[in-house]
Amino acid sequence: MSHQQYPSVLLENAVNEFSRLPGIGRKTALRLALHLLRQPVTEAVKLGEAVIKLREDIRYCRVCHNISDTEVCQICSHPGRDTSTVCVVENIRDVMSIENTQQFRGLYHVLGGIISPMDGIGPADLEINSLVERVKTDGIREIILALSTTMEGDTTNFYLFRKLAPLDVKVTTIARGISIGDELEYADEVTLGRSILNRVEFSDSYK
Amino acid sequence: MSHQQYPSVLLENAVNEFSRLPGIGRKTALRLALHLLRQPVTEAVKLGEAVIKLREDIRYCRVCHNISDTEVCQICSHPGRDTSTVCVVENIRDVMSIENTQQFRGLYHVLGGIISPMDGIGPADLEINSLVERVKTDGIREIILALSTTMEGDTTNFYLFRKLAPLDVKVTTIARGISIGDELEYADEVTLGRSILNRVEFSDSYK
Repeated sequence: MSHQQYPSVLLENAVNEFSRLPGIGRKTALRLALHLLRQPVTEAVKLGEAVIKLREDIRYCRVCHNISDTEVCQICSHPGRDTSTVCVVENIRDVMSIENTQQFRGLYHVLGGIISPMDGIGPADLEINSLVERVKTDGIREIILALSTTMEGDTTNFYLFRKLAPLDVKVTTIARGISIGDELEYADEVTLGRSILNRVEFSDSYK
Repeated sequence: MSHQQYPSVLLENAVNEFSRLPGIGRKTALRLALHLLRQPVTEAVKLGEAVIKLREDIRYCRVCHNISDTEVCQICSHPGRDTSTVCVVENIRDVMSIENTQQFRGLYHVLGGIISPMDGIGPADLEINSLVERVKTDGIREIILALSTTMEGDTTNFYLFRKLAPLDVKVTTIARGISIGDELEYADEVTLGRSILNRVEFSDSYK
């Protein structure tokens, strides 16, 4: 769309900015902007300020590197969490996903990505040294590697394992296998093969 | 999702505000917020300020009621437009749609809605009196009613026609018929029937 087709530069700017967001095309951006025009001024101000404050005021926990409103995040500073177990994840969203399962009461360590030579991301770009430091000083007994089950995830798992093996810590990875509710005939061969190799005692599988 | 599941109140606020927008659920809102966290601060500030300025500084053309950055919009003040023909539309988006066709060089009049008793919108809520005033004073020779082909659109068309009939102005409506590229067998009966009743000279139909 050319400039001429917007009746207002203010509208055009808002459409331009909205459409820079992932998954938002110019049509959707226009719909969002026109919606805001029909709302009270306070609505637009609340949205605008929330967006600016989010980016300007956000902090990262100095222990686990998750986002936080405080120097140490609410998970790291929670008295009820098991500080001897640390789950290593790629990003903030993974922390939220695992928290949602309510199956984990330990702490986290957010790498900030995974090793991906294709994208130019090497070990030095990730929070790996700080993880090693935590293991050396914080009395951690188990590190759970909870990375994507992709080539990059596997590469990162191996790299981390090599770094952590000399230290006095148990290293585990999340279980890989058939998704709950899936029928075997639709599972891919690699997953099915792994799920047989990594079979568990029947009684343990319903823990 | 409960409060606990967000690692930051700033993030939670941004997700809340994004998810108030139409068609944006909490998952998408989270994706947008996390995307902004990965961008430079300036990106978030530009989006936030565009949203606030759009709503705070927007003006409406005092002639046609389209949105505008100036007291009279760029269409109404354009020297090349045909001021004797005014197209009546429901909203801003309809103006943009018709402008995109590049088939119309007249002016517009934005009603700000259509008569809809179900939604509690009556003639007094719309820019109808100002339309009648324009016809009385601005030398308008033709009013084109370009409203939705719905019950509410028809009701509004009839109401406007009654108001305009006593005045010295021709009143037309946009053509209704089979969409270009449609096959007859898939057209609905009402549209097909209308398209036969309102048939035009063959040579006129390719104007």
